[in-house]
Amino acid sequence: MATTDMATTVNKTAHPFDKTRLDATLNRRFFYAPAFEIYGGVAGLYDYGPPGSALQANIIDLWRKHFIIEEGMLELDTTIMTPSAVFETSGHVARFADWMVKDSKTGDVLRADHLVKNVLEARLAGDREARGLEAAPPSVDKKRKKKNAKAAAVKLDDGVVREYESILAQLDNYSGPEIGELCRKHDIRNPDTDNEVGEPQQFNLMFQSSIGPTGQHKGYLRPETAQGHFLNFNRLLEYNNGRVPFASAQIGRSFRNEISPRAGLLRVREFTMAEIEHYVDPEDKRHPRFKEVRDLSIVLLDRHIQESGSSETTTITVGEAVDKGIIANETLGYFVARIYLFLINIGINPKRLRFRQHMANEMAHYATDCWDAEIHNTTGWTECVGCADRAAYDLSVHSKKTGQPLVVRQALKEPIVTEKEVPEWNKKNLGKLFKKDSAVIQQVVESLDEAGLLKLKGELAQGSTIVKSEDGREFTLTPEVVTIERKTFKQSIRDFTPNVIEPSFGLGRILYTLLEHSFWSREQDVDRGVLSLPPLVAPTKVLIVPLSAREEFDPLVQEISAKLRRAGVFSRVDDSNTSIGKRYARNDELGTPFGLTIDFASVQNRTVTLRERDTTDQRIGSIDEVIATVTDLVFGNIDWAEACRRLPAYDGVQAVD
Amino acid sequence: MATTDMATTVNKTAHPFDKTRLDATLNRRFFYAPAFEIYGGVAGLYDYGPPGSALQANIIDLWRKHFIIEEGMLELDTTIMTPSAVFETSGHVARFADWMVKDSKTGDVLRADHLVKNVLEARLAGDREARGLEAAPPSVDKKRKKKNAKAAAVKLDDGVVREYESILAQLDNYSGPEIGELCRKHDIRNPDTDNEVGEPQQFNLMFQSSIGPTGQHKGYLRPETAQGHFLNFNRLLEYNNGRVPFASAQIGRSFRNEISPRAGLLRVREFTMAEIEHYVDPEDKRHPRFKEVRDLSIVLLDRHIQESGSSETTTITVGEAVDKGIIANETLGYFVARIYLFLINIGINPKRLRFRQHMANEMAHYATDCWDAEIHNTTGWTECVGCADRAAYDLSVHSKKTGQPLVVRQALKEPIVTEKEVPEWNKKNLGKLFKKDSAVIQQVVESLDEAGLLKLKGELAQGSTIVKSEDGREFTLTPEVVTIERKTFKQSIRDFTPNVIEPSFGLGRILYTLLEHSFWSREQDVDRGVLSLPPLVAPTKVLIVPLSAREEFDPLVQEISAKLRRAGVFSRVDDSNTSIGKRYARNDELGTPFGLTIDFASVQNRTVTLRERDTTDQRIGSIDEVIATVTDLVFGNIDWAEACRRLPAYDGVQAVD
Repeated sequence: MATTDMATTVNKTAHPFDKTRLDATLNRRFFYAPAFEIYGGVAGLYDYGPPGSALQANIIDLWRKHFIIEEGMLELDTTIMTPSAVFETSGHVARFADWMVKDSKTGDVLRADHLVKNVLEARLAGDREARGLEAAPPSVDKKRKKKNAKAAAVKLDDGVVREYESILAQLDNYSGPEIGELCRKHDIRNPDTDNEVGEPQQFNLMFQSSIGPTGQHKGYLRPETAQGHFLNFNRLLEYNNGRVPFASAQIGRSFRNEISPRAGLLRVREFTMAEIEHYVDPEDKRHPRFKEVRDLSIVLLDRHIQESGSSETTTITVGEAVDKGIIANETLGYFVARIYLFLINIGINPKRLRFRQHMANEMAHYATDCWDAEIHNTTGWTECVGCADRAAYDLSVHSKKTGQPLVVRQALKEPIVTEKEVPEWNKKNLGKLFKKDSAVIQQVVESLDEAGLLKLKGELAQGSTIVKSEDGREFTLTPEVVTIERKTFKQSIRDFTPNVIEPSFGLGRILYTLLEHSFWSREQDVDRGVLSLPPLVAPTKVLIVPLSAREEFDPLVQEISAKLRRAGVFSRVDDSNTSIGKRYARNDELGTPFGLTIDFASVQNRTVTLRERDTTDQRIGSIDEVIATVTDLVFGNIDWAEACRRLPAYDGVQAVD
Repeated sequence: MATTDMATTVNKTAHPFDKTRLDATLNRRFFYAPAFEIYGGVAGLYDYGPPGSALQANIIDLWRKHFIIEEGMLELDTTIMTPSAVFETSGHVARFADWMVKDSKTGDVLRADHLVKNVLEARLAGDREARGLEAAPPSVDKKRKKKNAKAAAVKLDDGVVREYESILAQLDNYSGPEIGELCRKHDIRNPDTDNEVGEPQQFNLMFQSSIGPTGQHKGYLRPETAQGHFLNFNRLLEYNNGRVPFASAQIGRSFRNEISPRAGLLRVREFTMAEIEHYVDPEDKRHPRFKEVRDLSIVLLDRHIQESGSSETTTITVGEAVDKGIIANETLGYFVARIYLFLINIGINPKRLRFRQHMANEMAHYATDCWDAEIHNTTGWTECVGCADRAAYDLSVHSKKTGQPLVVRQALKEPIVTEKEVPEWNKKNLGKLFKKDSAVIQQVVESLDEAGLLKLKGELAQGSTIVKSEDGREFTLTPEVVTIERKTFKQSIRDFTPNVIEPSFGLGRILYTLLEHSFWSREQDVDRGVLSLPPLVAPTKVLIVPLSAREEFDPLVQEISAKLRRAGVFSRVDDSNTSIGKRYARNDELGTPFGLTIDFASVQNRTVTLRERDTTDQRIGSIDEVIATVTDLVFGNIDWAEACRRLPAYDGVQAVD
């Protein structure tokens, strides 16, 4: 990647990261903005503007290549509006809920676990301040100031500190009633009013609507795309010629009616997801390409560590994690590794990426094991990708509910041959002797196990046997009515419900954390933000900057635009009436990695200069040389060092700053 | 385009088009299928499977290139869940509705205009049958058989026939009460029950929900993406440096709770749209690129023709249509032409494409002129793209409601200089003389028009004047209190609300009609369906067919797959255990335009054969030659004739059918 190389030549950490400045930049340049802003906005709903849309589209494009194309997955585009029966079966109507508490006086609604987290973190920060220890991290500090200033600088008993820390480490593991207990025990109140809060109640996170003109058919907006995959399982299996493993994949909108959406993209009510459902034989969760990722090192935080109240991570290879049983199986490990590689590829800082295992009570109702890719940002560690083993849960419940088999029928290479004892009836004699009791007698005998049948066989060999019906009546059977015989059975087909491994990506969260990881200011100019997005995901790849809007530059602008378009490189022209330096600075904020300057020398000699965003280095070459070089840079074929070998440095007199 | 060339060599019309066969193929090969099928399905909701998703993704990709990239539009991705205030302002809560009627006995709900259309068309078909004229078209015939067999073969009076035909030609122009009148006058009943129907009632087509945990905030799912553009107008304008014209564009899901969804993709409750909002100076609707499309011939059906009860179309150039005022302005004409070019490019048959103008009563509440691109298919002419001039409607109503100016501030090149009479007050004398009446007096004078002020000026020149307040009191003014003076004003900024031209694409309808236009059967084999999709939109571009699944072919399969992937060509391998001919036939159904066969000669000589779908022609060449040729074919750089010049015909012994 070109960026790695560039990073060595500039100091991106000269200024501490400033979230306020980033947020202001993203808003001003319309990466995204609160939706319905002129109507006062709605919490948790955001619109993406041109650079945000392009960044998202580029991330999706890479996701499609990295997962769907590379692994031959079957892409789907399924329906958002879903009849309630589907989510009744999947368990979402009963269990897809968060715990909320109400302020006892104002009736304000708070998410219960967030309340506990905010209050205890504020008290711990106050304690650290009172002890004269390091200042609280800025995000916690800000929250405390805003919401619960009274918690400031009060020293706590050492035992209380340990207890709070332990609660926070396993907060996701508490049930609603347990959170209610915590609030009472630790006197946790609404920090905005200092009022007590009521008992935690469940609030279902699905948006409800009704379908059709009569209003009688209840529907929900999907909270995930997954059910759309499962309901089409038989069609997908047939498309894949009846074979597993295979995967379906879908990129689409989902909805969750969050109780308390956060400011920003981290907890929103409407979001774009990318989900994979990988169907695998439950008896064979190996993965044919596991060897390609076996030696990749990743950072893990397993459930046992968390349940012991700690947050200490381990660095380990994927192979070792699977061998030791920390990650349950090869397929889960393979996807953890592929998720890691995808995130690094789009520009996430690997040092701020970890995989955290869900604790027992935290797991979604459908999952048997789950690892979250968590990305660190100013609000802490944020779940951005979930990677769950849903086992056979979903296919089983839908199959049971609808009566449709959702199974793989596998022809066995070697048929399984078994022998067992079987009753053989003489139906004529049975009917003659027992009339309407015949069915009862047959049922009694056929429900016997192997040992019971063998006992009966022995007694019949002696002449007769007595069987007892459920209501206590006795019937005497002879070999004229029934015999027990040993028979051979051959099974050549195996039916099984596949297990599902589900990597599920929240694209908005990934996009936001990527922006945090990419944002910095130049050493000499703290006010000039730069977004060092990798060229592969940058919204615009090349900025074309004519010295001025004068007509003599137009033919070259047109020519270069057209040539870049033909090469598949997205460019924009900035011919606004301001200095070249200012125009570049504006586009550094947008993350545009390369700039082409057209000046009088361009008109005379057909040369242009090529500027690299992070270093602000400038090189010079003929139009076609520069276009070929920048195309290779954009597609990741070469890095900036290689570009510098191809093109000489520009030492022209024309100032650019 | 390669396909045009291919089309000349095969007879695609040997068999009449068979919709039943197409539908069965699309369902069996999982282009799309009813959503929630294993739960019995929900009318109007469909899921796209792998080939349908890929076809849709390719159409979207071309749309993005044809419109967004080519014209430098600003892409958006806005929110679906919308607070009710927005749609109250836009008029959708009051007016985005269809008329429905209820069966007087069963209470079944029918869409009023569809009822009239079905019943009258059935009666006309019965009339034609009774007169021994040509049979009714199959779609009408089928509907009649199913819904109203009683209408069969009854001769109508000539006057009645003319009246029915006139009603049908302008059906979209009737209001709800007028449709109720029609039902009574022509005894139109529910064809399923023969019961009368009630008065037409409005049914709002938006899905309703509520936002947040308290359930108090009403929200709707957007029925179009447009409002998301308008609400962000100020941000978009700033992003575009304050200049118009410019356009925003968005591709996304929208929802309409249709009263009676049709089977198939033509009328659904959830669909993907692509919408452009082009903002233009209301006083200058010229378009800088109009000259590029001026000479393009298109087929029009204007509103006057329809209102006269006819459906006769005119073929005319876009330039002439604008010059004659048939199409209102250059910008509207430019987009009509661009829509035409896009549809032809993806494979729509130009002979089955027309632009129909909306009649006065048919127009959406926001539009001042509207042209629909209608594509012909087995159900008749279907609106697939709307191209409306929404004037300043949306920006004006949102601005008025929210108090936010949504205007362009344009610096005038030449300031507008005006002179006018202005009262100049001596505030001190005014206050001293009139005290608390001062304000009333000022108001009276300042509300005078130019003539009034001149009259006052004359009187003041005479010494004094009398002015009268609203409540009838009289005040005497002298030049010591006020004089009227002529002053010069210079206006250098012009504020205006831009007009909006909106091309709006229903992608599902386009996709379905494209499938109808592409489907045919080979002359010698009616059961073998072929989808002649242009390579640009075909779901899979190249099928790789090894002679068998034997291991010796694996290295070549891997090599060719990897090389095609690097060239950006999406391929799939079919190594299933069936003949090569059958495998090709299966992929003709999927629209895969090219096939590469790997056989023993490939292993020995590194040659592969290249097969073209429509002609079934086969050529042969070295692996790298064939990959280069097929890449050029897929990207439309060459046609099949050129490929045949590059590669010799294959006359090998290996049978492929």
